[in-house]
Amino acid sequence: MLLGSGELGKEVIIEAQRLGLETVAVDRYMGAPAQYPADRAYTGNMTEKGFLKHLVEKENPDFIVPEIEAINLEALSEFEDKGIFVSPRAEAQKIAMDRFRLRETLDKAGVRVSQYHFTSTAEDFEAACKDFNYTCITKARFSSSGHGSYIVNSKEDVQAAWDERKKARKPSEDVIVEEYIPFSTEDNQLVVRNNGTHFCKTLGHYQLHGDYHSSWQPIYRNEEERKGFEAVKDQVYSFAEKATLALAGKKGRGIHAVEQFLDFENKKVYVNEVSCRPHDTGMVTFKTHYPGYSQSGLHIRAVSQVPIEPRLYQEEDGVRILNSIGPGASHVIVSPSEGWNPQFRGIDKALQHGDVWIFKKPYAFHEPHHGRRLGVALALADTVAEAIKEAELTAHCVEIKTNENPTWKPQWMKEKHVVS
Amino acid sequence: MLLGSGELGKEVIIEAQRLGLETVAVDRYMGAPAQYPADRAYTGNMTEKGFLKHLVEKENPDFIVPEIEAINLEALSEFEDKGIFVSPRAEAQKIAMDRFRLRETLDKAGVRVSQYHFTSTAEDFEAACKDFNYTCITKARFSSSGHGSYIVNSKEDVQAAWDERKKARKPSEDVIVEEYIPFSTEDNQLVVRNNGTHFCKTLGHYQLHGDYHSSWQPIYRNEEERKGFEAVKDQVYSFAEKATLALAGKKGRGIHAVEQFLDFENKKVYVNEVSCRPHDTGMVTFKTHYPGYSQSGLHIRAVSQVPIEPRLYQEEDGVRILNSIGPGASHVIVSPSEGWNPQFRGIDKALQHGDVWIFKKPYAFHEPHHGRRLGVALALADTVAEAIKEAELTAHCVEIKTNENPTWKPQWMKEKHVVS
Repeated sequence: MLLGSGELGKEVIIEAQRLGLETVAVDRYMGAPAQYPADRAYTGNMTEKGFLKHLVEKENPDFIVPEIEAINLEALSEFEDKGIFVSPRAEAQKIAMDRFRLRETLDKAGVRVSQYHFTSTAEDFEAACKDFNYTCITKARFSSSGHGSYIVNSKEDVQAAWDERKKARKPSEDVIVEEYIPFSTEDNQLVVRNNGTHFCKTLGHYQLHGDYHSSWQPIYRNEEERKGFEAVKDQVYSFAEKATLALAGKKGRGIHAVEQFLDFENKKVYVNEVSCRPHDTGMVTFKTHYPGYSQSGLHIRAVSQVPIEPRLYQEEDGVRILNSIGPGASHVIVSPSEGWNPQFRGIDKALQHGDVWIFKKPYAFHEPHHGRRLGVALALADTVAEAIKEAELTAHCVEIKTNENPTWKPQWMKEKHVVS
Repeated sequence: MLLGSGELGKEVIIEAQRLGLETVAVDRYMGAPAQYPADRAYTGNMTEKGFLKHLVEKENPDFIVPEIEAINLEALSEFEDKGIFVSPRAEAQKIAMDRFRLRETLDKAGVRVSQYHFTSTAEDFEAACKDFNYTCITKARFSSSGHGSYIVNSKEDVQAAWDERKKARKPSEDVIVEEYIPFSTEDNQLVVRNNGTHFCKTLGHYQLHGDYHSSWQPIYRNEEERKGFEAVKDQVYSFAEKATLALAGKKGRGIHAVEQFLDFENKKVYVNEVSCRPHDTGMVTFKTHYPGYSQSGLHIRAVSQVPIEPRLYQEEDGVRILNSIGPGASHVIVSPSEGWNPQFRGIDKALQHGDVWIFKKPYAFHEPHHGRRLGVALALADTVAEAIKEAELTAHCVEIKTNENPTWKPQWMKEKHVVS
């Protein structure tokens, strides 16, 4: 039973179908991507305990797989007590949703995080910013995807940063103020807890307006960065594993995403974010990994205790790294228009560069304040640089219209792009 | 709209879901494999015109994809006349179901087939067998999967061969008697008609009791066979393409399977069978082909006019050959017991050798006269020989029981196997 049925969950359901599992997909709106390939679909408010309890009584699932955080955690804990395997566990969800608890948990687990202050008043907040010489990042306690976060570069930014907390998912006076790390690279590690711990090849990515826009695997490193990485490799893998264990618990299974800042000059690795499920940036693995072993395949295999084939990974200095088919990249396809029934053209041109997967979302906007992700472009190439370019070209060939906005429109975001 | 919803269709639906298509799966029994991942499923008698017409009126599909032959062809023709794209077309179905028409069609298309006689009486049949010195293969006109076929090795076999026609899918007095070809290798070509014609790397396979049991890609050839192949390569590709075109017609799109006998001594290639859809032996491509491009992915992409990415094939002497990830093999997992709700164990052991995909069939036997295929083992390895062995080991780790037969039983067929 998948709780939350987005595009990452859709691939979880597809891989579960291949393994022969019976699948149920739940979401708050009808026609969520994972609901289409699932055996059965339910729609309702997952923060309501009664709704979840009713579903679990009816379906009696062996495994519950939360895909999002906005779920009634009390219900999840009760399901665990009943002996249902919930992955990620309720406790992991609680920690991940609360930036204060997440920081404390990582700190205690022996993982390096940037210096920080918890603040709950404007005075403490101001003092914390000052402590970091007004060069810091502030984040609302209960927030995600950049909402409620602010980059402070000078004293003048403090008021705006403090006000930003109101934009959080769950607004409160609690804000964490974090030291700014002048990192060399920002790496995403996908860590699989199945029969042992396995790492995917490192992901690189960039964001636009707080959301993932393009990702690639493996991460590109120049000669200097390669040397830098060798010197901090042990920290990378040990911090990622510790962070994962701290959240997932000893019985935790599944894929985890760990975002790290690598500071080659000071030979230091910092853990920035951890999540216990497939990750937006990991969509590139839909193409770069062997069939059945994308991040979503790895997730459901781990949860349902199907081990990883020995041929599909290499052991390097005691670290198991999953093989990949080759260098690849992903690039989001987002809606330029609001409205129902998004339609696509330019697919044939796009396919000259890479592949196009469309998620099947019945309307182009669910949250009307930003471009909704409707699909993803996926490209393989001989080099990562080439793949990044090809994925971008693929996505930018696609034009979209909706019933309410019947003019074909192209992708419009161009910042950080390599071609145009 | 998929008509027939078996395990090959299941992957067609899965790949269609990824492309963003709306999917409908139809079968004669409830809980057929492709029905689970489809948006909507219907169950009924597909040889009934009224049933199909009702579904098409209700669903108004853009594409109809017959997966099996037992479909009302009059209805299919009417759907074509209405402008719905049916692939394979009704005409191709008619030809493929009728061994007399298929032979004539291939013969006319300039494709080499073995010598043959059409017979409709015991006397003609006897005379035809005599003409081939009692070394021939006899096949009932309306038959498939070996039912109604007989290998005649001596005069004494003639009566049994004539009686065998009664076991055909649609018994009649019409039997084709074919010359026996002392072939060097039996090759399966998967031919994709999409934006141009593409070939998959050649498949090898063996059968047990008339059904595919294991397949591999690429086919294994020793030094002599490699030389032999080079000498007949032109015939292989041109006959396969002509045979496909003859059945599919100029507008035909999709994947086609062409079974060929290669006689290296006489430098001759014969076409033995043609089908216009994914093929049992092609299940190996679920692992050997790039994600999204298995035989089922290639089929739905071709049907729905999503072209093949230029990076995914090589052109050799004017022939486009699809790249593969590496050598691999498939091996069926069949039920040793009748009954409902097949259950599996040994999956963790199996995964040490290869992957296990389970089709989700609600009962272990639908046609109670032979072991029903419930899943497939899929292995990649450094060499084809190794992959064949590993796929076999994978399958043979799996034990199955059903509600009615609650004793765990292993796979029992061992003929032609390499390990045991």
